[in-house]
Amino acid sequence: MSGPLHFEDFHLGRRFDGGPYAVTRDEIVEFAAEFDAQPHHLDEEAAKRSILGGLAASGWHTCAMTMRMFADALMPLADARGGIGSPEGRWMKPVRPGDVLRIEAEVVDLKPSASRPHGFVTFACKVFSQREQVALILMTPVIGMRS
Amino acid sequence: MSGPLHFEDFHLGRRFDGGPYAVTRDEIVEFAAEFDAQPHHLDEEAAKRSILGGLAASGWHTCAMTMRMFADALMPLADARGGIGSPEGRWMKPVRPGDVLRIEAEVVDLKPSASRPHGFVTFACKVFSQREQVALILMTPVIGMRS
Repeated sequence: MSGPLHFEDFHLGRRFDGGPYAVTRDEIVEFAAEFDAQPHHLDEEAAKRSILGGLAASGWHTCAMTMRMFADALMPLADARGGIGSPEGRWMKPVRPGDVLRIEAEVVDLKPSASRPHGFVTFACKVFSQREQVALILMTPVIGMRS
Repeated sequence: MSGPLHFEDFHLGRRFDGGPYAVTRDEIVEFAAEFDAQPHHLDEEAAKRSILGGLAASGWHTCAMTMRMFADALMPLADARGGIGSPEGRWMKPVRPGDVLRIEAEVVDLKPSASRPHGFVTFACKVFSQREQVALILMTPVIGMRS
C-alpha cells in the first residue's frame, strides 16, 4: 500500500483492526468523576449493588476509548478529516477494570459528496473484550478525501 | 416536589434544564490528546486549515460534556440507574474554546419493563451554545425505577 487511503479506496466490508486498550480502574473512576459521576462508575461497593453488578466504565468513556483505538488504527493510513454527522451505538456489555479491548471497524456505508472533494464513510466499530464478547457497537461516520 | 422522581413521574414532553458548562481550550486539547488526537482538535493552526475552520472539541468530548450536564441536572432528582441501550446523536455545530453550553433534556420515549421494577426513559438532549445554536442533539436512554 502506498500513500494515504482516499475515499475511493474504501469499499463495503473493508475492515480495520485496532487496539489493544487496557482499561484501568483509575481511568474509569477519573473519567466518571469528570463526566458521569454516578455511583456505579465511581465506587466498587455501590456498583456491586447496582444493575451493573460491579464497577464499570461510563458508556461515554467506552465510546471515547473506542474513538482512540479507531483514530490510532485509521488516521495514519487515511486522508480523513474527522467525524461528522450522526454517531449511534449500542452498549452491549459493561467494560470492567482490567479489560483489554480491541476493535474491528468495518465499512458499512459510503456516500460521495455531490459538491465537495470528499465522501462520507461510515464504519461499524465492534468493540471486543478479552472475553471475546462485544461490549459496544458504534457507528462512526468519517469524512474521507477524494484522491 | 418531594422525594425522588420514579418512572411513573416522567411523561412525554417533561423537560429538564442543565448547565452551564464553560468549555476551555485546555480541556479540549487534553481530551483530544487522550481519546481523539486529530490535528483539528489539538492545534489552532492545523484547525484553521481544516473543515472545522478552527479549534473545536472532539464530538465525543461534547457527548461527555453533555452527559455531565445531564447527570448533574437529573440524577439528584430521580431514582435512576444509569444509561442503557442505544445512544444516538447528531453533531450540528462545532464546540469552541470559550463556549458556554447548556442543555434542554426532554422525555421523548417511555417503555415500562415487562418483568423488572423499572422502565426505560429516553431523553432528547439538545445542547445549546451561548449563541443559541444547537451544537449536538443526543438521545440518551436511562433506567428509571418504579415507585
